[in-house]
Amino acid sequence: MSRSRLAVLGTGLIGGSIALAARARAPEYEIVGYDHDPTTRAAAEGALDRLFDDPVAAVAGCDLVVLAMPVDRIPAVCDLLEPVVRSDAVVTDVGSAKLDVVAAGERAFGGRFVGGHPMAGSERHGIDAADPALFDDAWWILTPTQETSSTAYRRVAGLAGALGAHPVALDPGTHDALVARLSHVPQLTASALVDVAATAGDRDALLELAGGGFRDVTRIAASDPALWVAILRSNRNAVLEALDRVTGSLTTAAGMIRDERWDDLAGWLERARRARLGLFAKPVMGAEPVALALLIPDRPGVLAEVTTAAGSLGANIEDLRIIHSTEGGRGRLELVISGHGPAAELAGALGGLGYRVEVAPDAGLETSG
Amino acid sequence: MSRSRLAVLGTGLIGGSIALAARARAPEYEIVGYDHDPTTRAAAEGALDRLFDDPVAAVAGCDLVVLAMPVDRIPAVCDLLEPVVRSDAVVTDVGSAKLDVVAAGERAFGGRFVGGHPMAGSERHGIDAADPALFDDAWWILTPTQETSSTAYRRVAGLAGALGAHPVALDPGTHDALVARLSHVPQLTASALVDVAATAGDRDALLELAGGGFRDVTRIAASDPALWVAILRSNRNAVLEALDRVTGSLTTAAGMIRDERWDDLAGWLERARRARLGLFAKPVMGAEPVALALLIPDRPGVLAEVTTAAGSLGANIEDLRIIHSTEGGRGRLELVISGHGPAAELAGALGGLGYRVEVAPDAGLETSG
Repeated sequence: MSRSRLAVLGTGLIGGSIALAARARAPEYEIVGYDHDPTTRAAAEGALDRLFDDPVAAVAGCDLVVLAMPVDRIPAVCDLLEPVVRSDAVVTDVGSAKLDVVAAGERAFGGRFVGGHPMAGSERHGIDAADPALFDDAWWILTPTQETSSTAYRRVAGLAGALGAHPVALDPGTHDALVARLSHVPQLTASALVDVAATAGDRDALLELAGGGFRDVTRIAASDPALWVAILRSNRNAVLEALDRVTGSLTTAAGMIRDERWDDLAGWLERARRARLGLFAKPVMGAEPVALALLIPDRPGVLAEVTTAAGSLGANIEDLRIIHSTEGGRGRLELVISGHGPAAELAGALGGLGYRVEVAPDAGLETSG
Repeated sequence: MSRSRLAVLGTGLIGGSIALAARARAPEYEIVGYDHDPTTRAAAEGALDRLFDDPVAAVAGCDLVVLAMPVDRIPAVCDLLEPVVRSDAVVTDVGSAKLDVVAAGERAFGGRFVGGHPMAGSERHGIDAADPALFDDAWWILTPTQETSSTAYRRVAGLAGALGAHPVALDPGTHDALVARLSHVPQLTASALVDVAATAGDRDALLELAGGGFRDVTRIAASDPALWVAILRSNRNAVLEALDRVTGSLTTAAGMIRDERWDDLAGWLERARRARLGLFAKPVMGAEPVALALLIPDRPGVLAEVTTAAGSLGANIEDLRIIHSTEGGRGRLELVISGHGPAAELAGALGGLGYRVEVAPDAGLETSG
């Protein structure tokens, strides 16, 4: 039996790392690739089995296509590849905003497109910074919708797991709102802080006074502007909404300072302090993990149905994976839920939706890859 | 000859570290202290030669008084101590905003008050975090004015140097504008970012998506709100001005995103990127260091005159110290200037002001302590 073929389009930091990691850990794939930049392409030569100078040629006959170019180019690439990608091939991407990309992907490939966003990166860029261990223990967000086929999800989640990451499912809109708040607006804020500090004039005094705090807060301001314009552009609405909230919050604080409402200011700072401590102090697993398993048909919307049920019950999905079944057209979905109570509730709800749910005695899902 | 007496009022992180460092490195001082909190006082017992439960008793007969309580309490403490501090004693503080504190200090003690702000700290607070090495190689900003006596400056700069720090002079208003931009507003921004992220709702997704960047940018949001209210309160005007600039800068960026002016946004990000790289990439010493030395009379305004001359010529003062002279009423001021050209220019300008300036063949100021 011949190997499956994986195409990586865009062989920068993320694409290059995917190729390297897949080579090392996913021997079932022959890895082909493309980059529009001849220099990057030449540098990526050793990381892939075969490099093409044309994206259409690269994806021909592929089973799985990973779009790893700058996020603002993905919609056009979907349109370009739509006529040439095999009709049973699965397509995913690694863009850092998802609503627009998923819409374009589904327009071109229907339920065979699965949006993705590995939570891994580096301040360095390009193939030279690529690292087969880049995704080890990282979250790999996948954004299935009502349309996503579970076969497609399974294949992409399987790749993410094989590369060392933990795949988790999130709604595309939720993803975008969160990354706007957690990444895109902090980036703009760092740039604004540096901009305002740098115009203060006294350069030497700046150096003397700028402590470790300022260094930490503004480190990300040194990132590549072209990359960031692409990211901000592709998440425009969510960024504007989050930016509006942050300037609103700062204006609120300014009002408290102007009106000398020091107790209010202390309360505002205390709320943020608790949130910050809570955010990183808490272990990722809040309560005892409980594994649920259910057989799922390979039809669009199954994953969204299950994750939506969990969300509406407030059950935390700590892990989610789909195991290929030998029965054809079906898969086994394994979920790890935080806490026995929420797990039992979710099992009941899924039972009500027609699923047969097993509650495993322990959460020992085998690790993939 | 009996030892000089140093009083440290407020024995938290900074005051406690000053006491510990002075004990280890400034044996010429007997160290007494006070803290308004009985628990802190008890914990500081071992760090000082003598602890008082009354600030007035603590400063009686002292040669040098360091005010290390929260910055918003310093003005009231100046008023309280004015009648009891010896008429030849020098008073300094370690507050992180200077205009109001220096005004209050000079009202009470005239030219014998020297504002100070050691650029050292820790995310921990209190005497338990105190460390005799806290100031090693840190900048210790001093904010002399036209009124400051050079004897007083000399004594405070000598203490800072003995504790391991590098004393540098800065105008109080410049200091406040810079710390607002480099520390106080970044603090508020971190709190605003956490506040907005935390209200996004999906706590688990937040954890999965919040990467190292967000962790770095918001670490300072976990600081003590009471301490920060005191700091923001004492630097109210400069904070409001800087906050206004930062929200203005963010609003500008939002406008570019809203109007899809991507080239403008790239330019804005690029300017911040260059500023950030320039700020920390540059070694502190930009050009060859040149030492200048001049005899200065002990009269108010001398330091301000010299540092103002340097500032107006654009000469960077990399180091500044005053050596006690045996001639009584005079001191030797040593400056290290970055670059031969600026050093020669400054020497000329100071000559024009009536100073006799020597240009040392090398910048080898002895280290103090």
